[in-house]
Amino acid sequence: MKQTILALDVHGGDQGLDVSVPAALAALAQDPHLDIILVGRESAIEAALESNDGSPPFLERLQVEPAHSIVPMDAKPAHVLRRGRDSSLWKTFELVAEDRADACVSGGGTAAMMVTGVKLLGMLQGIQRPALMAWLPNDHAYTGMLDLGANLNVGADQLVQFAVMGDVTARIAEGIEAPRVGLLNVGHEDSKGHDTVQQAHERLRNLPLNYVGFIEGNGIFDGSVDIAVCDGFAGNLVLKSTEGLARMLMQQFREAFSDNLASKAGAWLAAPTLKRMLARLDPSAHNGAPLLGLRRVAVKSHGSSDLKGMTRAILEAGREARRQVPGKIEALVREYQLESAS
Amino acid sequence: MKQTILALDVHGGDQGLDVSVPAALAALAQDPHLDIILVGRESAIEAALESNDGSPPFLERLQVEPAHSIVPMDAKPAHVLRRGRDSSLWKTFELVAEDRADACVSGGGTAAMMVTGVKLLGMLQGIQRPALMAWLPNDHAYTGMLDLGANLNVGADQLVQFAVMGDVTARIAEGIEAPRVGLLNVGHEDSKGHDTVQQAHERLRNLPLNYVGFIEGNGIFDGSVDIAVCDGFAGNLVLKSTEGLARMLMQQFREAFSDNLASKAGAWLAAPTLKRMLARLDPSAHNGAPLLGLRRVAVKSHGSSDLKGMTRAILEAGREARRQVPGKIEALVREYQLESAS
Repeated sequence: MKQTILALDVHGGDQGLDVSVPAALAALAQDPHLDIILVGRESAIEAALESNDGSPPFLERLQVEPAHSIVPMDAKPAHVLRRGRDSSLWKTFELVAEDRADACVSGGGTAAMMVTGVKLLGMLQGIQRPALMAWLPNDHAYTGMLDLGANLNVGADQLVQFAVMGDVTARIAEGIEAPRVGLLNVGHEDSKGHDTVQQAHERLRNLPLNYVGFIEGNGIFDGSVDIAVCDGFAGNLVLKSTEGLARMLMQQFREAFSDNLASKAGAWLAAPTLKRMLARLDPSAHNGAPLLGLRRVAVKSHGSSDLKGMTRAILEAGREARRQVPGKIEALVREYQLESAS
Repeated sequence: MKQTILALDVHGGDQGLDVSVPAALAALAQDPHLDIILVGRESAIEAALESNDGSPPFLERLQVEPAHSIVPMDAKPAHVLRRGRDSSLWKTFELVAEDRADACVSGGGTAAMMVTGVKLLGMLQGIQRPALMAWLPNDHAYTGMLDLGANLNVGADQLVQFAVMGDVTARIAEGIEAPRVGLLNVGHEDSKGHDTVQQAHERLRNLPLNYVGFIEGNGIFDGSVDIAVCDGFAGNLVLKSTEGLARMLMQQFREAFSDNLASKAGAWLAAPTLKRMLARLDPSAHNGAPLLGLRRVAVKSHGSSDLKGMTRAILEAGREARRQVPGKIEALVREYQLESAS
């Protein structure tokens, strides 16, 4: 089997090299068919490699590509295009564009990754803009949700494309057979919603997807679908608000459990089972949000992701490249005649 | 002080009379300036009153208005308009329209309440459609969020009106001084978002509101605003998805706590503090979603609301009517020259 080569922006993410370099080593250990190019400041990368055991056993599958600057997490797209060309983010995507790597991963800002991806990798034929998809824990597994903020004004065409891109990724990269695809709406009855979702609903019903119809917001978490589709404005609000609610509930539980001696003892007794539960709900357990619609594989790791999370994002990107997710999306978009007009 | 008269649809809500009649009695006990008209099937109401202690002490402040049919929770608006005129929902709104009551409450379906409210009560001058606002628990208090699904396609005009309606309700009905109003968006920087939120943002900055600017979804729960404004499509998805996530997390906690003997003992020890925490987060603790923009006060109680929740919705409606929330909204919309074009 041919090696898959992954370019990793070591400076992306809140914890930079402290997470990215150990994650690269962990990914190499788990996937023998993966090679990794670490992109960033050479001296910092060498120091990080040394502090991670001096001579890692996978050194021959590891390269370093120098990059001198770092794109700030909140960088504006225009700033990245104008002044980001010697950054680790840009160089990471460039390695894929120049065919020196098959896929890339960064924990950098979404907007910066989007603009760099579109500029350097280009869009699949028939698709106008990339969509960001993340996996959220549900009742018993995970729901892929897209778009999460790349497309604020979308038409029915694009919602249908999102559905196809989500379907392909779930099938090919995650191995989910006949993924159940739902379209987010304000009600599950066929008559509900505005014109855009109505038109997308009509078209999706006529495609050979496992389309289950409209779902409401709770459908993301009750395990009734594998892929939940919506425009980027609503999707981003849903993602951020559910993250915010989860953070608040966890904080309140922590406070309740440290309130007095009895509750502290209770927390201690229940800790093993609570930990198991929280581990599954931890977003890191399914970290790695692909930028779908690009001609090559690019995966965003959550900015606050830990070692486990970033390792998963790297493995996910390797798998998507090896299984040629972008090519399969393009083929289906053509087969279903879903090309956008412009 | 003049009595405030409230019309209550006793059949609205999943538990009908079992919750509505005890809630009416509880509200009468808590607010001496409230009279209530119970609207629904007479024999059922009488039976419910009898089973609640035979002769309640507040009988002289209670009337019964007969209605023969019940609108199903999922009734379509057209069905309500065509065939709902002898229903308890319709009669409840009719009492307000005929000035026999000052406010109304139902736990019925949102769409049915909306269409009945617009038809019988009419809209405030300058406002085209009502918006639904609910209170969600945040870090330390509650955030009023609107719109939750009444308006799927909104322009900047309407977002600004929502902000003003939320501000007035928070100040006048809830007694929050200078409520902090935020506009939901995909980022908090001034440059983020589509044209509609950009235009609304510009106008809100020039109004004498305590407008804090753009907020992201997590801003609903971190206590940074009192009022969170967005279009009804995104708002409904956020509401339903956060309800769904909360339900899933509670279920998982319950399962974790009943997993084995140690975790059961832990749950028992921590129960008092956990209960205090959950009581505050319980949606019933702040139940009562006003339909804002109507000429009179109408409040929706959550369909699955319990005695405490429906009691609160009734008291809330009484307070809004007494403090003339609709009139104050209309006055501000005129003062700020925010009337919709059509």
